[in-house]
Amino acid sequence: MKFRRSERLIDMTYYLLEHPRELVSLTFFSERYGSAKSSISEDLGILKETLEQRGMGTLQTIPGAAGGVKFFSKVKEEDARAFIKELCQQLEKPERLLPGGYLFMTDLIGNPQIIHKIGKLLGSAFSEIEIDVIMTVATKGIPIAYATAAHLNVPVVIVRSDSKVTEGPTVSINYVSGSTKRIQTMVLSKRSLKEGSRVLIVDDFMKAGGTINGMKSMLAEFNAEVAGIAVLVESEHAEERLVEDYISLVKLRDVDVKKKEIKVDEGNYFTKNIHFI
Amino acid sequence: MKFRRSERLIDMTYYLLEHPRELVSLTFFSERYGSAKSSISEDLGILKETLEQRGMGTLQTIPGAAGGVKFFSKVKEEDARAFIKELCQQLEKPERLLPGGYLFMTDLIGNPQIIHKIGKLLGSAFSEIEIDVIMTVATKGIPIAYATAAHLNVPVVIVRSDSKVTEGPTVSINYVSGSTKRIQTMVLSKRSLKEGSRVLIVDDFMKAGGTINGMKSMLAEFNAEVAGIAVLVESEHAEERLVEDYISLVKLRDVDVKKKEIKVDEGNYFTKNIHFI
Repeated sequence: MKFRRSERLIDMTYYLLEHPRELVSLTFFSERYGSAKSSISEDLGILKETLEQRGMGTLQTIPGAAGGVKFFSKVKEEDARAFIKELCQQLEKPERLLPGGYLFMTDLIGNPQIIHKIGKLLGSAFSEIEIDVIMTVATKGIPIAYATAAHLNVPVVIVRSDSKVTEGPTVSINYVSGSTKRIQTMVLSKRSLKEGSRVLIVDDFMKAGGTINGMKSMLAEFNAEVAGIAVLVESEHAEERLVEDYISLVKLRDVDVKKKEIKVDEGNYFTKNIHFI
Repeated sequence: MKFRRSERLIDMTYYLLEHPRELVSLTFFSERYGSAKSSISEDLGILKETLEQRGMGTLQTIPGAAGGVKFFSKVKEEDARAFIKELCQQLEKPERLLPGGYLFMTDLIGNPQIIHKIGKLLGSAFSEIEIDVIMTVATKGIPIAYATAAHLNVPVVIVRSDSKVTEGPTVSINYVSGSTKRIQTMVLSKRSLKEGSRVLIVDDFMKAGGTINGMKSMLAEFNAEVAGIAVLVESEHAEERLVEDYISLVKLRDVDVKKKEIKVDEGNYFTKNIHFI
């Protein structure tokens, strides 16, 4: 069966979007479509140009016999700015304010379009870094971790606060919550993380960073390495932050419970991410 | 700026994949690419044919002034059969067996390619049914719920076993776990579900169906409606099942802890889903 260029481009777009950061050989496409490699090369040229122009991502060509192409999910800086601005406006709505200065974000994290974009922004910042696994903590970090994983094409492991029979043997550690100073426990299934893995830690919210510090201690138990830290929201915190090197999309600046006012700014995303298209 | 057909097709593929079940007008595409509607119509014809041929999904054309196209994420029956067969083989590996006859599935649910396919299969079975929201219960149901939501383009709400300060006011119900007969509690944020919503209940594992029954009771508290029930694994259960109408991808048939043997068959997916491409 022979494929026309238009059909090949549609199928290639779909295929590459589902396999980011995976090396796909020209032979694979050439056999898939019954087309000459020279035609495939031309297709990929058109694809790369359009992906970049439209802010979808980029293609990297690896030359040689073992070569091929890799798709990287990336964003344009202007698209990222527009999305983060929208996120700030959404989060500043006074009805989000909960007792204790917490913010209601469940609706945003529950929205598939928003979570997809959050994942794309976080994923694209780490797209050129070697990452084997994404780690997060139940419950709110999970959607963000999976959304990011879809763009990086790596598995997700979930740390929990209780151990479940369906996890098998677990490793448990104690950590100190940064803001409340309470001692807490987190648990990870022993089978879920290989020694030496390079891990991207993802979470929805970071105050002092106690939970993320806990995940770092957990990684040490598995002889695994922190490859990066990414959060959706960081809150400005008077006390010393326990975590230094991280990327945040937005920053919660002032929460005035009396006046029902919330001030949300962009996070450090644009100073930390230099990997735009 | 004018776009060539090849560029339009790449961008349309990307756009429609990110906006399943959303009505997109011809005017939208025509303005996006500076192209005549007649060209857009031709593009959509090519797109529909290729999407269907390659098992990606289908396009539905709505005629008239308020018309346009809708993309539905769908699977071919042969692709679904191949994937479910692979899933069964994966699940039958004896090293998955945990004390109590439970199965270790964390690695499968953590794999972004597998979770994407699970979501596609479940989503495509419900693609033509009116659904407003997907509901699941923390923790293991969450990735499956989001993966399904990405194909149906609806938000996810998460029921928890404890209430968190960051959820705001909650509704709490008690339910009886079907297999252990223990009374348990589940909690849902009041803001997260509108009255009258049509809800698809999604979970990773169903034994007698107590948890799913609990979610049904929760929906009743919100005056919301069950639009469907979808699980990854159902286990064969001697006692009466509490839930009748559901879709499952695989069925856990025999677990012999002594012999370390697990028998996994396909679920009722092919008798319940008639919406293949």
